Amino acid sequence: MTMDASRFEAIVGAGGVITDPVRLRTYECDGLTHHRATPGVVVLPESAQQISEIVKECLRLGMPYVARGSGTGLSGGALPRTDGVLIVTARMRRILSIDIENQRAVVEPGVINLDVSKAARPYGYYFAPDPSSQQICSIGGNVAENSGGAHCLKYGFTSHHVLACEIVCPDGEIVELTRDGAGYDLLGAFVGSEGTLGITTKVTVRLTRLPETVQTLLAAFGSIEAGGEAVSAIIGAGVVPAAIEMMDALAIEAAEAAVHCDYPPGAGAVLIVELDGPSAEVEHQFKDVTRICQEMGAFETRIAADDAERALIWKGRKSAFAAVGRISPAYLVQDGVIPRTALPGVLARIDALSRESGVRVANVFHAGDGNLHPLVLFDDAEPGAAERAEEVSGKILDLCIEHGGSITGEHGVGVDKSRYMPRMFTEGDLDTMQMVRCAFDPAGLCNPGKVFPTPRLCGEVPGVRKGVHPLVEQGKADLF
Amino acid sequence: MTMDASRFEAIVGAGGVITDPVRLRTYECDGLTHHRATPGVVVLPESAQQISEIVKECLRLGMPYVARGSGTGLSGGALPRTDGVLIVTARMRRILSIDIENQRAVVEPGVINLDVSKAARPYGYYFAPDPSSQQICSIGGNVAENSGGAHCLKYGFTSHHVLACEIVCPDGEIVELTRDGAGYDLLGAFVGSEGTLGITTKVTVRLTRLPETVQTLLAAFGSIEAGGEAVSAIIGAGVVPAAIEMMDALAIEAAEAAVHCDYPPGAGAVLIVELDGPSAEVEHQFKDVTRICQEMGAFETRIAADDAERALIWKGRKSAFAAVGRISPAYLVQDGVIPRTALPGVLARIDALSRESGVRVANVFHAGDGNLHPLVLFDDAEPGAAERAEEVSGKILDLCIEHGGSITGEHGVGVDKSRYMPRMFTEGDLDTMQMVRCAFDPAGLCNPGKVFPTPRLCGEVPGVRKGVHPLVEQGKADLF
Repeated sequence: MTMDASRFEAIVGAGGVITDPVRLRTYECDGLTHHRATPGVVVLPESAQQISEIVKECLRLGMPYVARGSGTGLSGGALPRTDGVLIVTARMRRILSIDIENQRAVVEPGVINLDVSKAARPYGYYFAPDPSSQQICSIGGNVAENSGGAHCLKYGFTSHHVLACEIVCPDGEIVELTRDGAGYDLLGAFVGSEGTLGITTKVTVRLTRLPETVQTLLAAFGSIEAGGEAVSAIIGAGVVPAAIEMMDALAIEAAEAAVHCDYPPGAGAVLIVELDGPSAEVEHQFKDVTRICQEMGAFETRIAADDAERALIWKGRKSAFAAVGRISPAYLVQDGVIPRTALPGVLARIDALSRESGVRVANVFHAGDGNLHPLVLFDDAEPGAAERAEEVSGKILDLCIEHGGSITGEHGVGVDKSRYMPRMFTEGDLDTMQMVRCAFDPAGLCNPGKVFPTPRLCGEVPGVRKGVHPLVEQGKADLF
Repeated sequence: MTMDASRFEAIVGAGGVITDPVRLRTYECDGLTHHRATPGVVVLPESAQQISEIVKECLRLGMPYVARGSGTGLSGGALPRTDGVLIVTARMRRILSIDIENQRAVVEPGVINLDVSKAARPYGYYFAPDPSSQQICSIGGNVAENSGGAHCLKYGFTSHHVLACEIVCPDGEIVELTRDGAGYDLLGAFVGSEGTLGITTKVTVRLTRLPETVQTLLAAFGSIEAGGEAVSAIIGAGVVPAAIEMMDALAIEAAEAAVHCDYPPGAGAVLIVELDGPSAEVEHQFKDVTRICQEMGAFETRIAADDAERALIWKGRKSAFAAVGRISPAYLVQDGVIPRTALPGVLARIDALSRESGVRVANVFHAGDGNLHPLVLFDDAEPGAAERAEEVSGKILDLCIEHGGSITGEHGVGVDKSRYMPRMFTEGDLDTMQMVRCAFDPAGLCNPGKVFPTPRLCGEVPGVRKGVHPLVEQGKADLF
């Protein structure tokens, strides 16, 4: 399919449109690299007005479109359409204001997550959501995916830190979604809608005061169960750490091989616990945390003496995904959620699954909020290995659902997990979501094929099929 | 209009249907008593299934319906329809589970706010949202209005404490809205939708650990401006109090006359600052707060020595609305929001408005988050006084909008403020909200006449008028 790019050049200028096949390949996938599609055309707008015109043009042409920030997503949410337009926000990178008195910043969607914190740091503030990709991921992408990070246990997800969004709706209209208390909180529904309800063009984020003190502890346990019990005991004692991360033996082995993070040898699991806040509180609670870890059988606890030691502890954790590449030719990352109290049981079941199937699973997770990231290892050169890994991944998600959890904690559904949605939601639940999608996007052109399991026309959705209720047509308008 | 109640009796039994005109009068208004309408019929269901059947029956009859909890709302959100059904949840008062390990409770919508805290207290937990009416208001009503309270500065609104809702949609379907990370966060849009998107039948709430320590300070200032500057200085110092409340001289006078709360004589404003959390932190920060208040000109600071003194300090604040009845035959309560930093300027303008118009205004507010509750006093026996009070109220809301704020912080829009919505939102913003409303409720029977300024048929809303995009009709289904 060849695209007539001139219509888009008229909107953003020739320099803002990419049609060269080699350059288009750059955009063929996001962080989930096993789904690939070369976009029909890439357009690089510089303003909300331009995005509005692009969307209106797509509507006229009946052409699907997908928005993309930095392309670091892990569920294929920014997978392009070969028959469509990829709208890349990389040229919208201005920090428009930093309002310290009201603790907020206004930024364009292409601004890099960490750059917001860098801009606020001189005033003693930062932007709290910290996905592992924070050095390159964009705020627009964070909004689309409702990104989390290691510290969302205490500070919450992107949704908790976004105060307003200017968006371009699928009909091309530019509207402002706020949390002003009046009218519906559509901001809540928009954040995390994975690019299916419109495109963010301006984001007002909350800035958080830098904590007075940060303390980080590494505790090594004989088994993952012992580590899981320590997590429950810490939370049960009323401590709300900034982060509690856990890695199992295989993940530790990988991290050690890759970045020499010097974790205690022989550990079945390590726990990273970080506390932040006023010094008096942190010191008091840190003693409790250390004691609890020891009581739960930690054979070594190590407290970071300074920022360099803290960075080394985190280096092992933050590089764990990439490090797994050292011990396995290929792997799938999952992103399930379970109630924290179900951790020991679910981990034992994952272990059993791994042994039965012969598929190795490395576990890295945000233990404090029960967000698991099992890395399912396989050799893509071995016939059938990818399928077996996929099967084990699916069974892990089933385990999460069975325990009242979710198929995604922070990576989104995207193209990757849409087929699991019916295992988690009833048909009525999915219809309700489709009703809202169709209200925003009746033409179904805004990031189609993501999130929902079956592509359906809006006319096929029960809530929408009704369209206008028969009574309205009968003229009983006085009822309303 | 006489209702045929037999259809509803078939669903809930004869004892669950009220048609007696005298008994119906009990339900003619909520906390906003100057809007009144006797409901056509009152139905008291006992389950989600019954509510589903009532809603389906209403849909068949083309009859509007309104849900009501305890009826303490202050914007007329539960104002009945004379031609419709009032669905009262008072018989759905079971606390279904308290799950301390996962820090959550599951309750029916008629459960009283404070009863959740009472049930959780033996385990060391409570339900954080604390509207002044918490001894009588219902959780279902809190969900509908996204209720706040004095402590929402630190702990957030109802929305932050609701993890899932079972709801009956306007088509009668029972669905579960969750924050599971997968699919749209429709829970965010539902909470605070003022009963226009469906009826809550079961709520999963987050339980919060009781703080180790609570400290409360009362500071008296010569003027409201000095008090406002103290608020900014406290927040600017990085302290996040559990609450900061302010009252002006007229509100103090009223409270003093009503409950003898013993506030310092001659104060132009009092500030109540409450800190909670670990003892070490609270003590450290409390010194800062006391010092800041003194630096900003507090002529008296008083620290509650025990729970009894704390209760007395709060008694003045919590009874302020009712107390105003002692110094004025009638009053209107407003609920505007402004950026905290705009407090001194806006208060000066309100003062000028009051002097120019001769209408007295008492100010009581959640100063920490800029949520004003001006009480506009008038004598309803005096011709034209109500209209003048209404006019001053409207001008106060205009001031809030002009300063980038909102017409409601926690009371909702309801029938009372729907006419101000176009001052705050563009037509495009309102259309987007209507699109969502119509997706849920195409027949327009679910609490019609609330929130939105102009009753419109769903067919008249631009986003909805499009219905299914022409391209779909042209059969270009392969695009999706």
